[in-house]
Amino acid sequence: MKNYQAYLIDLDGTVYAGSKQYPKAKAFVERIQAAHIPFKFVTNNTTKLPVDVVANLADNHDIHVSPENVYTAGLATADFLDQRAGKTGKRTVYVVGEIGLNQALAAKGFTIDEEHPEYVVVGLDSDVTYEKFAKAILAIRSGSTFIGTNSDSNIPKARGLMPGAGALVDLVRYATQTEPIFVGKPEPILLQNSLALMGIAPDQALMVGDNYQTDILAGIHAGVDTLLTYTGVSTPDQVAQQAIQPTYTVPDLAHWDLEVGPID
Amino acid sequence: MKNYQAYLIDLDGTVYAGSKQYPKAKAFVERIQAAHIPFKFVTNNTTKLPVDVVANLADNHDIHVSPENVYTAGLATADFLDQRAGKTGKRTVYVVGEIGLNQALAAKGFTIDEEHPEYVVVGLDSDVTYEKFAKAILAIRSGSTFIGTNSDSNIPKARGLMPGAGALVDLVRYATQTEPIFVGKPEPILLQNSLALMGIAPDQALMVGDNYQTDILAGIHAGVDTLLTYTGVSTPDQVAQQAIQPTYTVPDLAHWDLEVGPID
Repeated sequence: MKNYQAYLIDLDGTVYAGSKQYPKAKAFVERIQAAHIPFKFVTNNTTKLPVDVVANLADNHDIHVSPENVYTAGLATADFLDQRAGKTGKRTVYVVGEIGLNQALAAKGFTIDEEHPEYVVVGLDSDVTYEKFAKAILAIRSGSTFIGTNSDSNIPKARGLMPGAGALVDLVRYATQTEPIFVGKPEPILLQNSLALMGIAPDQALMVGDNYQTDILAGIHAGVDTLLTYTGVSTPDQVAQQAIQPTYTVPDLAHWDLEVGPID
Repeated sequence: MKNYQAYLIDLDGTVYAGSKQYPKAKAFVERIQAAHIPFKFVTNNTTKLPVDVVANLADNHDIHVSPENVYTAGLATADFLDQRAGKTGKRTVYVVGEIGLNQALAAKGFTIDEEHPEYVVVGLDSDVTYEKFAKAILAIRSGSTFIGTNSDSNIPKARGLMPGAGALVDLVRYATQTEPIFVGKPEPILLQNSLALMGIAPDQALMVGDNYQTDILAGIHAGVDTLLTYTGVSTPDQVAQQAIQPTYTVPDLAHWDLEVGPID
């Protein structure tokens, strides 16, 4: 096994499950911290700020990290558009989304234009309305570039599987007949940007997650080795059917040794 | 040409275009009325009541008909569920929609159940919220039957092409991974129910509309002859590419003689 120089780690299903603690995952994070290995939690969440993610980990899971250890799809979307706009491009945007997305875009100098924005960004928004969808659709039909933060169909909540960002994006796709550019996992952008921020090459990092369709595919797309932990969405039967296998699989993160790899 | 015993007529693009009057279409309707031929306007609209459709025709287009001449996808959805529920089925529903749909369902004895309805009906709703989508999605995921009033991607308004019922339905489809049962055109239900209400066999009626993908396909699916008028959505080039052609095509409805058929 390689001696990985950095870890990219999914959150829900990997480090915890909603409000349920995963003590083995907590111990895994603490082993990485004790070994002084750089790591980032990479999450498709766009509704929270990194400080909120940190607070949730501390308050509900007794896992203590800093905001620099968190990279959300909200931040990744802002960084992606920042790179795309460059030094001369227009920085106007219309956003269907919440604070984690809005604040990240504002921090990169993007301002709101409700009628003729350069970009329309659609993410999870629990205050979405017909009017917000209409503005997004009219702008895209007038030539704005259509960005989807991520394609997740659902987000798990206590009430059940609620509509995810991908469902909101899909309404806009259907009404514009335009395919969005997606930023979140399984696209590679979230991982690529995280590694660039840490100064680590893709072949020196390991992506850890519970969901083949998002975490593992993102790793494959980014050229990053992958570790699938069977503590969330994906099952061994589902994974067995995939053409490209994860680099490693473990029943839980107690079965991963930082120096040895998977252990019994 | 057959002597058609009844006419089924689309509205927007056929009888008018938004607020724009079509004098030739008005004359066509008046010729049908003078000849005492039964007719119904068949529309995918679910937001208006038949009396509102009648008032719009009278006030803005000087076309004077009765509510019995109007059959909306709202009425068709209620009639479809009425038939499906029969005498013993549960009549509970959760609705994403407006008055034309809600009132039609209430008139057939359907009551609202926000948690465990027999049916979830999704149509156009300019007051839609994330919470409404969430209730629809949780119910369908718990076993409710998923009905879409119609699959229209957009509705033309003064501001541009706004999100249509089909876009709202598509969000729910994406988040439930469940295909809806559609009622409106191009499905045949709207036409079949209209003909049943008039006591006319499908092969004795003519469907008139401007949109191949909705009006003409609905006629084809219902076994009803079709007349495409090039006064709206479809163009001759688009129609030429279709495997099944409309029975007749005319540049406008002045070119249709009730006894002769298409005329120069």
